[in-house]
Amino acid sequence: MFIINTVLKLNRTMAKKPGIPKGTRDFSPSEVARRQYIMQTIRKGFEHFGFHPIETPSFENYDTLMGKYGEEGDRLIFKILNSGDYLSKVNDEVLEERSSQKLTPYISEKALRYDLTVPFARYVVQHQNDIEFPFKRYQIQPVWRADRPQKGRFREFFQCDADVIGSTSLWQEVEFVLLYDSIFTNLGVHGVTIKINNRKILSGIAEVIGAKDKLIDFTVALDKLDKIGEEGVRKEMEEKGITPEAIDKVSPLFNLNGSFTEKLEQMTQMLSASEEGMKGIEELQFIYNEVESVGLKSANFKLDVTLARGLNYYTGAIFEVAAPDTVQLGSIGGGGRYDDLTGIFGLKNMSGVGISFGLDRIYLVMEELGLFPETVNASSKVMFLNLGSAEMAYSLKAAMQLRELGIKTELYPDNAKIGKQFQSADKKGIPFVVVVGSQEMETQSYTLKNLTSGEQETLSFQQMIERLQ
Amino acid sequence: MFIINTVLKLNRTMAKKPGIPKGTRDFSPSEVARRQYIMQTIRKGFEHFGFHPIETPSFENYDTLMGKYGEEGDRLIFKILNSGDYLSKVNDEVLEERSSQKLTPYISEKALRYDLTVPFARYVVQHQNDIEFPFKRYQIQPVWRADRPQKGRFREFFQCDADVIGSTSLWQEVEFVLLYDSIFTNLGVHGVTIKINNRKILSGIAEVIGAKDKLIDFTVALDKLDKIGEEGVRKEMEEKGITPEAIDKVSPLFNLNGSFTEKLEQMTQMLSASEEGMKGIEELQFIYNEVESVGLKSANFKLDVTLARGLNYYTGAIFEVAAPDTVQLGSIGGGGRYDDLTGIFGLKNMSGVGISFGLDRIYLVMEELGLFPETVNASSKVMFLNLGSAEMAYSLKAAMQLRELGIKTELYPDNAKIGKQFQSADKKGIPFVVVVGSQEMETQSYTLKNLTSGEQETLSFQQMIERLQ
Repeated sequence: MFIINTVLKLNRTMAKKPGIPKGTRDFSPSEVARRQYIMQTIRKGFEHFGFHPIETPSFENYDTLMGKYGEEGDRLIFKILNSGDYLSKVNDEVLEERSSQKLTPYISEKALRYDLTVPFARYVVQHQNDIEFPFKRYQIQPVWRADRPQKGRFREFFQCDADVIGSTSLWQEVEFVLLYDSIFTNLGVHGVTIKINNRKILSGIAEVIGAKDKLIDFTVALDKLDKIGEEGVRKEMEEKGITPEAIDKVSPLFNLNGSFTEKLEQMTQMLSASEEGMKGIEELQFIYNEVESVGLKSANFKLDVTLARGLNYYTGAIFEVAAPDTVQLGSIGGGGRYDDLTGIFGLKNMSGVGISFGLDRIYLVMEELGLFPETVNASSKVMFLNLGSAEMAYSLKAAMQLRELGIKTELYPDNAKIGKQFQSADKKGIPFVVVVGSQEMETQSYTLKNLTSGEQETLSFQQMIERLQ
Repeated sequence: MFIINTVLKLNRTMAKKPGIPKGTRDFSPSEVARRQYIMQTIRKGFEHFGFHPIETPSFENYDTLMGKYGEEGDRLIFKILNSGDYLSKVNDEVLEERSSQKLTPYISEKALRYDLTVPFARYVVQHQNDIEFPFKRYQIQPVWRADRPQKGRFREFFQCDADVIGSTSLWQEVEFVLLYDSIFTNLGVHGVTIKINNRKILSGIAEVIGAKDKLIDFTVALDKLDKIGEEGVRKEMEEKGITPEAIDKVSPLFNLNGSFTEKLEQMTQMLSASEEGMKGIEELQFIYNEVESVGLKSANFKLDVTLARGLNYYTGAIFEVAAPDTVQLGSIGGGGRYDDLTGIFGLKNMSGVGISFGLDRIYLVMEELGLFPETVNASSKVMFLNLGSAEMAYSLKAAMQLRELGIKTELYPDNAKIGKQFQSADKKGIPFVVVVGSQEMETQSYTLKNLTSGEQETLSFQQMIERLQ
């Protein structure tokens, strides 16, 4: 009994040591400030381009999410346990089987959002009568995945998506390239590469090599061209069962070079026998011409025929954004066109196209390149020290006026030793401190100390504002 | 077999009709815009007063949340089902019992955040070595409760909290009153009433009536004074077992009137025998004096000795904010001081004080009073119509410049009938439409139509900007 009690106590003590579930994160004030800065910049970009925000619930009905992301996706969806006596709805037979997979639908009828696309499709179908199409929506919300956590991969993370639904116009694709360029430019992330491909080109290649089912193998092999060279790629393709004759037909792919248009010309010769392939080339040429005509501010725009993100999902353009060359981080955004987004919920023939920004990776890029403006921090601008009640009353009045001017202002709450108060401001990264003693009160002034330079001045209220603004 | 197939098909068709879990909400673009406006105003207020944002994960470890909100709270916490073969960790004995309550800890080790206070306490303890105290944090995030949904009560809703932890200074209470006033003033919600009480006064009353255990009954009865009069209240108190003699001792409570200070004077006579009660009066007097000295911009500040929110939780000041009298909506904010917030996680003697804003209710108040500025909407400012490819290319260049100036601009993506395009802009609530045809292109001009007034002008780019800004 004594041992049991001790174990229980130990358990209780251990349980008290607080932590958070693996794959999740606490964000400190400075991290929140930086994340907000990125999100606000993306939000503004979306809005200037005419996208409007929606928000959907964190959890959806079980049936809304299940079966939409493949078997692996189903497994990675966080299910919410029903409230109350959930077992009362489970019959003995099901329980005795002891199959977690079979039991789940009986004890869970809700699940956490896995991405923003399926909830968006559900939203469009549910509210179709209130929506004016084409509908340009953006959505910035967290999603949850029961993935194995690893560096840069979390179980809770934000997605930032913009989509247009209800139009097949290629002007959307043009606008999305401009939007990527605009937002990354505004973030100060110059030199990203916006890669584009078209599912129709991939289909055309499959047609030419006479092996639609081998397209993924083919694309995966082709993607290694930089690393293993033409011989290596050919070898891998042959191993996957693609004949040398078929490979020869698309051999221009091994030597694609030159400008966007030059690459397209080389592709044209190769895909001339495929109607779909030619359509893909035509679409890419249109997008390229119009983007070129407006001009990009800081991004590169590149044709990448190996790009195949979510191959079975996209039906037209495929986008991916690579971080600037100086940072080894891979993709920081992506998207594409999908011809039947809402079909799963019963609304047919709704073509959509959209892009996504990878918040966490963009954060890492900006941190690595030192791109966060100095003004983006969570510190107050100024702290009034506390030298006593009368002094605090005098200070508070001034503080309220500074706050109305938009200056982040705090007052040290306790009448602690002055050294401790200075230290506190310093540790919090507050650049200015105001000292108000009896002398300042008599002369209606404020002693302002710049903690960075050490400079100290006794000022009128108006002068203090000028220094702080 | 035929019947089964038909049933399966029916099920599949029915499953397709999309909806969302009860108690949750989709937010349309205009709703998101208005909610963002409120949240941004609150966020700015918090920051100007020197509060810094943190964010915590949507789900916490099961043990972090359970047992912190009472039995009822435990029941209302949404638990997340473990991933994978969660039943493998359950032994036969537990399963055969068929007790949902007993099974839960075996199949769930995470739960959705129920409020922001417990995660904040956990955060402070976990990161105590990185935090400079007193720590002023704010947090604006959703919480989830498996409450029975009803009008104005949801299963997912945002909380907006600001707290200071690590100081017992009453200047914090003063600042929180000013903060409430400042934020509601900035939202345009004038005439809210900030009610204050002090737990020590309630303890003093209990001491005087000689019945600490009857304090809740006493407070509930006293709260009905307006409705049932002094006689009614006395009767209810006696029914609850409070003696007439005890009631007589605190009879000034039935006739509290006059200013804040006058009320305090009446309380002083009544509570003079209670040291704790007198301390409460002293604290309130200090807070009142300092608030009065700075002055409130639009709120009323009122002593309400019946105020007892979360009685067992608060140890000092208790706050509640009532909507302006013209709106019947009850409390739109509340808070108070708690002397041992982090003790549950092993960090003792951390006094905290905080306030909360009720986003959903504030939204309803602002909607009812028509307080959302016209500029807060999700519509684009201008739409360029699509009269063909050359016209679109010309328009897109202009659109990009407008966007850079911060003007929300969209282009109609398809070359549809002009009437349909006008209609679309109108339905979307876009106030301006630009028509570019061959004539405009030749003369480097733009025809701008104001959809509200019907006015139409052909303008240079510079003139168009002036109209739109």
